[in-house]
Amino acid sequence: MEPNIRARQELERLEVVAGNGLLNRRAFLRGGAAFAAAVTGYTVAGSAAAEPLKDDPWSLEMGAVTPPLQTPSRFEKHVVRTLSNPNNELRNSHARTPHHLLNGTITPNSMHFSINHSGLPDIDPAKHRLVIHGMVRQPLVFTVESLLRYPMESRMAFVECSGNSAPMFSNQPVQATAQALHGLVSCSEWTGVRLSTLLDEAGIDPKAKWVIAEGADSLALHRSVPMKKALDDAMVGLYQNGERLMPGNGYPMRLLLPGYQGNMNVKFLRRLKLTEGPAMSYYEGKIYSQLLPDGKAYRFHFLQEVKSFITHPSFGLKMNGPGYYEISGIAYSGNGRISRVMVSADGGKTWAQAALQEPVHSKAFARFRAPWRWNGGPAVLQSRAWDEAGNAQPTRAEFVAVRGETKKPVTNLLSFPNQHYNSITSWGIASDGEIKHVYA
Amino acid sequence: MEPNIRARQELERLEVVAGNGLLNRRAFLRGGAAFAAAVTGYTVAGSAAAEPLKDDPWSLEMGAVTPPLQTPSRFEKHVVRTLSNPNNELRNSHARTPHHLLNGTITPNSMHFSINHSGLPDIDPAKHRLVIHGMVRQPLVFTVESLLRYPMESRMAFVECSGNSAPMFSNQPVQATAQALHGLVSCSEWTGVRLSTLLDEAGIDPKAKWVIAEGADSLALHRSVPMKKALDDAMVGLYQNGERLMPGNGYPMRLLLPGYQGNMNVKFLRRLKLTEGPAMSYYEGKIYSQLLPDGKAYRFHFLQEVKSFITHPSFGLKMNGPGYYEISGIAYSGNGRISRVMVSADGGKTWAQAALQEPVHSKAFARFRAPWRWNGGPAVLQSRAWDEAGNAQPTRAEFVAVRGETKKPVTNLLSFPNQHYNSITSWGIASDGEIKHVYA
Repeated sequence: MEPNIRARQELERLEVVAGNGLLNRRAFLRGGAAFAAAVTGYTVAGSAAAEPLKDDPWSLEMGAVTPPLQTPSRFEKHVVRTLSNPNNELRNSHARTPHHLLNGTITPNSMHFSINHSGLPDIDPAKHRLVIHGMVRQPLVFTVESLLRYPMESRMAFVECSGNSAPMFSNQPVQATAQALHGLVSCSEWTGVRLSTLLDEAGIDPKAKWVIAEGADSLALHRSVPMKKALDDAMVGLYQNGERLMPGNGYPMRLLLPGYQGNMNVKFLRRLKLTEGPAMSYYEGKIYSQLLPDGKAYRFHFLQEVKSFITHPSFGLKMNGPGYYEISGIAYSGNGRISRVMVSADGGKTWAQAALQEPVHSKAFARFRAPWRWNGGPAVLQSRAWDEAGNAQPTRAEFVAVRGETKKPVTNLLSFPNQHYNSITSWGIASDGEIKHVYA
Repeated sequence: MEPNIRARQELERLEVVAGNGLLNRRAFLRGGAAFAAAVTGYTVAGSAAAEPLKDDPWSLEMGAVTPPLQTPSRFEKHVVRTLSNPNNELRNSHARTPHHLLNGTITPNSMHFSINHSGLPDIDPAKHRLVIHGMVRQPLVFTVESLLRYPMESRMAFVECSGNSAPMFSNQPVQATAQALHGLVSCSEWTGVRLSTLLDEAGIDPKAKWVIAEGADSLALHRSVPMKKALDDAMVGLYQNGERLMPGNGYPMRLLLPGYQGNMNVKFLRRLKLTEGPAMSYYEGKIYSQLLPDGKAYRFHFLQEVKSFITHPSFGLKMNGPGYYEISGIAYSGNGRISRVMVSADGGKTWAQAALQEPVHSKAFARFRAPWRWNGGPAVLQSRAWDEAGNAQPTRAEFVAVRGETKKPVTNLLSFPNQHYNSITSWGIASDGEIKHVYA
């Protein structure tokens, strides 16, 4: 039987579960992926359309040297972090992860996002010290080497800057990629020492309710951490994805507070002081307070709340004609595991459940995927996530009603009009395959 | 109370579960990590031994620029792959992962091991083609772009060269690191298309029992894969740890056969031919046949069997005096999940169960950890793993009885006297803290 006829029959049997072509996520599980037969780009060998196959030049010669540290193919040189301060001027520096060009749940170390307020300090690990003092039985000073002797644990965790997605506060959708919009979040396997282990070593005064964490770069950024979090899953992180921390992510050690906003995960950690009350430091009293529309401000907003966004297809990528596509993206919550992600192709009128890549880790990226048959007409793609505690990612209308938006469109993608944006992202697909950022 | 007295009392309460100081793995779970108080290297602040704390130079100046792709600290420049062919001579090239310097379960992409027989081909992904032909209903030709449209999946998997650990066939233990001995295995999160999806597209002739996979480098290495495996968890891999494949690991696409020996995971995959019988290619008839002591050879030996080794402490590292240490290492099995790892500190006379870092993935690295109180005397450390199918890592005596060993000591660490070594590794600790590779 001519394959295209059989393929079309199989396609018709696939269950449409929501508007504008969204298919049952279990379509993946049925063998016989003829639903992919509508994919353009493959040809039938031997047909008129097929090109003659011959050895390419690289199949006829010795290749390049094997290096001590691998680097990507030159054909992937567009897959990099975008930089806010490429010439290291005396101001802060952000580097954003290219989510629209990555896949899976892990961010490779070269592309983990970073924010550094006074450049990357050149810290000699033999000289670096971690001091634990304040309301303790006995203040202690640790070297890196002594810390490496402690019981380690490894866990997946996302780290997100509270200012990630700040362009989404714009009253008009900014035309930018998932990197520009959401690039200040990444996910790694972190290995280090449970902070509670070290605090127990020093001995905690029962009156101590906070831990002030300070870094060793010239900014000496410090934040106050509630004791409950410090004794929960907080970690002094030493390794990311198997190797020692990247300089931009805190080498030789950082505080890791799974699910808590990025700046509290103090890099280049050098001091932990146990106190009765919070420091109300510059970085919590001024910089990281979120103003509300009524003029009030959150005193603290520790948690990065449930969130998701589609990475493929998205702005900066292009559709290649109607047919089958897999909608793919990432979801995460500072509260724990993602329990469900729904996807819409009609701007939120109807929804289909997406498949979640197992296993789903707590406070880490979950990759969601949804099969979609694009008929070539206009479409608006959205994703919406729920976490295991029952929290729902808010719609834009819900979010703006509480948190507000700017009065004029955001034009500077490196600005932070506000923080803690976790609402829905919508991508508008036009008939010619072009993708825009839209609000719906 | 003077902290060292209290610490000593806590230490004495810790349960010794096996000879020469091995502790209950659940010691980690009890709060109050005073067992770590025996760690040298931390000092009590304010004591005579404590050094005065002052700002280091990096705390007083602007740091370095934030780059588009992060690279490690200069203080980690010793953490690299070791190379067999650094000048790219016309022969094969191996690069080994520095396991004794890494932690967790993921191998960072820069340090994933690689073996390339004809250098790293400079493949243009726009020109690369994957052909599926032979005993199919319709032969197909895929571009990279068309493959990227297919349903993806992500999974953790180790890849191990069948020749990994070959120096262990030596009749005398080779004095070398875990990198030199076991560096031809690594673990990543792989993202790609299930092979069964693509074979279903082409349509499988019921008489086809094998798939011959061929690569696009000038070697054009090809191996025969049983159809059962091809239709099980085989994948065409496109991403490793989130980014596109490294050139040394098969860019732009490789075959991934979780748990099967490395060379079958054909890199630079360009052709899959469905056949009735195996090809008995050069790479299976000659190179990758394992000779047995009686002169016979395994016709095929697809599976990388259950295996473990201790990474810390190990040869190349040094003990810093008696006290608490965490024995740490990796375990894996081509059969599925690791179910149990036992550790010995007395050369296999007595054993304690190690803790396994959760979640434990199938056919991927599991990190095991065991608390140990070293009394400063001689010790011989070993690990032994079991997988969920009930397979046990063999002792050296068991292994040599079946597979043999060399008649003379191995002196060339880059040679492969035999393959598929999965027996126990032993590290001998001397009183002065020096670590040797021993047989026990």
